[in-house]
Amino acid sequence: MPSNHGVIFKAVPDGYPVLGEHMELVTREIDIENFSLGDGDILVKNQYLSLDPYMRGRMRNPNIKSYVKAFELGKVLEGSGIGTIVKSNNKKYQVGNEHLAKEMSKFNFPKSYFLGVLGMPGMTAYVGLNKIGKPKKGETIFISAASGAVGQVVGQIAKIKGLRVIGTASNDSKIKYLEELNFDGVFNYKTCNIDEVIVLTHLNINARVVACGMISQYNTKAPYGVKNLLCVVSKRITIQGFIVFDHYHETESFRKDIDEWLKQGKLKYKEDNVEGIQNAPEAFLNLLTGKNFGKEIVKIC
Amino acid sequence: MPSNHGVIFKAVPDGYPVLGEHMELVTREIDIENFSLGDGDILVKNQYLSLDPYMRGRMRNPNIKSYVKAFELGKVLEGSGIGTIVKSNNKKYQVGNEHLAKEMSKFNFPKSYFLGVLGMPGMTAYVGLNKIGKPKKGETIFISAASGAVGQVVGQIAKIKGLRVIGTASNDSKIKYLEELNFDGVFNYKTCNIDEVIVLTHLNINARVVACGMISQYNTKAPYGVKNLLCVVSKRITIQGFIVFDHYHETESFRKDIDEWLKQGKLKYKEDNVEGIQNAPEAFLNLLTGKNFGKEIVKIC
Ligand SMILES: NC(=O)c1ccc[n+]([C@@H]2O[C@H](COP(=O)([O-])OP(=O)(O)OC[C@H]3O[C@@H](n4cnc5c(N)ncnc54)[C@H](OP(=O)(O)O)[C@@H]3O)[C@@H](O)[C@H]2O)c1
Ligand SMILES: NC(=O)c1ccc[n+]([C@@H]2O[C@H](COP(=O)([O-])OP(=O)(O)OC[C@H]3O[C@@H](n4cnc5c(N)ncnc54)[C@H](OP(=O)(O)O)[C@@H]3O)[C@@H](O)[C@H]2O)c1
Repeated sequence: MPSNHGVIFKAVPDGYPVLGEHMELVTREIDIENFSLGDGDILVKNQYLSLDPYMRGRMRNPNIKSYVKAFELGKVLEGSGIGTIVKSNNKKYQVGNEHLAKEMSKFNFPKSYFLGVLGMPGMTAYVGLNKIGKPKKGETIFISAASGAVGQVVGQIAKIKGLRVIGTASNDSKIKYLEELNFDGVFNYKTCNIDEVIVLTHLNINARVVACGMISQYNTKAPYGVKNLLCVVSKRITIQGFIVFDHYHETESFRKDIDEWLKQGKLKYKEDNVEGIQNAPEAFLNLLTGKNFGKEIVKIC
Repeated sequence: MPSNHGVIFKAVPDGYPVLGEHMELVTREIDIENFSLGDGDILVKNQYLSLDPYMRGRMRNPNIKSYVKAFELGKVLEGSGIGTIVKSNNKKYQVGNEHLAKEMSKFNFPKSYFLGVLGMPGMTAYVGLNKIGKPKKGETIFISAASGAVGQVVGQIAKIKGLRVIGTASNDSKIKYLEELNFDGVFNYKTCNIDEVIVLTHLNINARVVACGMISQYNTKAPYGVKNLLCVVSKRITIQGFIVFDHYHETESFRKDIDEWLKQGKLKYKEDNVEGIQNAPEAFLNLLTGKNFGKEIVKIC
């Protein structure tokens, strides 16, 4: 019988999640033939799973409201994935179909791209830059976590749009990658002597800040206090937060543009692959500490 | 000979300015008849002077750039005022004219209103609410320093526009005034048991924050660190700073609307008057600590 690996949500972490304490690896056998599906259910064999920072936000007390619901204690940690339907009790989904199969057939890119550059992180980059940032040719953009799943796409679209692109990351191989992407300025924020809070104090008058995430604050009970918000008034700064889920009606133009840029070689995409669910918890922690490099994908054989 | 009082800028303060240390009262005699004016100069006898929080920002090291230039050490502290021209070497300004006389003749309001509700603070309320806040009927607005020179105008315009208006202030007479203005909800933030950082955590999804000022941060070397900025992402909040000086092309529509609302009795305006320049430094400090109540105006006999 095939075995089914999973990671169970065991307890709400205060800081960084710890394997064994907050997440537990389980292996169960699954009898596909005799597996009984509820009405409308399908059974999927996963090929790729996505690990994303927002998943940390779901590891919370379910009483705290947020834009995605909390994970359920005792249940498997969920995420986006790509797989094949092996059993179906739903007329819309036939056995053998791949989820997203229709859209995917139009493209010749690796399937995993649908979890990255052509998926949620790419869409975040696209709407965050275009709809929230509203960039104008000749402007300068500064991107933190610039080599990441979202950041690398933001920077490359910004170059396509004629912006001067400055990016930062935490190690030299990431910096090298940003140079390969022709960023106009790059620096390692761990080794450079920059002001503690570069962003606000160095902004231009009328600057816009696209608040996409604050990953350093996801795993701490003692959030960092930002002390220079007065700049927001004196420099007429706009800080705007957004959540990609609110913008899914833009999917078509997003796919069209990204598809074209990928085909034209204007857009590259770096993934960080691990194999097997048993390595997913560590990969997830790497993502939350900056040890990943590129879009974190779990490949399942 | 008439005497001329002034307050000299003596030293850049770290915290609250101290009379004698950072500001000094001086009295000089002035021989108006023999006073020699440079080309284009005029000599004005002041009747009203305005005290405004931004003046604290001018008491800085001149090397620090900002939206208004720093006061010059050893010179008189400047501000907006209303006065009569007593001597002129400028064809555009005739002796006996009042500055702003042309505009003022259209209105029957107290002259000092041109330093308040019809002046810079009123304009700040008007553009801050309308252009930055873009309020829609039925929305809720929360106003801090709601009884102040700017705040009381924001609240009343918001009522006119059909918003639900919640305001806060630091003492019960201010709160009573806000009730008289028919605010929908008012509370004294010094005595109420509110969360430490009400604004961000209690905002609705997609809320807009008009960042008009941060007066508690003007007199401190240890700025407060805002720890809940992550809300900006999860609640899709927009925080937008602005400076009224960028919006002076809106003066005409501002004057027209405010004029009408004042005449219709839809707008009231509370001033806090002190008499004589010798009382200006204390009044300025009251403004910076919340002991003022309404637009701070210095009357000069
Ligand atoms: N608003 C939305 O709808 C939306 C959607 C997707 C993602 N996001 C946000 O966008 C950000 C990037 O997401 P992503 O998927 O592209 O992830 P990612 O950038 O591929 O990976 C996370 C990166 O964040 C940096 N990082 C990790 N821990 C950190 C820490 N403690 N302090 C400072 N930096 C740290 C690391 O980059 P360095 O090595 O360069 O420091 C790391 O590689 C996240 O904050 C995420 O929550 C928001
Ligand atoms: N962006 C612009 O262009 C622009 C233009 C004008 C004014 N402003 C800003 O708008 C704000 C209000 O200005 P205003 O002229 O209308 O002054 P105001 O409200 O008449 O007087 C200042 C008020 O601020 C509050 N306050 C003073 N010290 C405080 C402290 N340490 N902590 C907390 N609250 C304190 C007090 O109200 P409570 O007693 O209710 O606490 C005080 O009455 C200021 O921040 C000012 O810098 C901005």
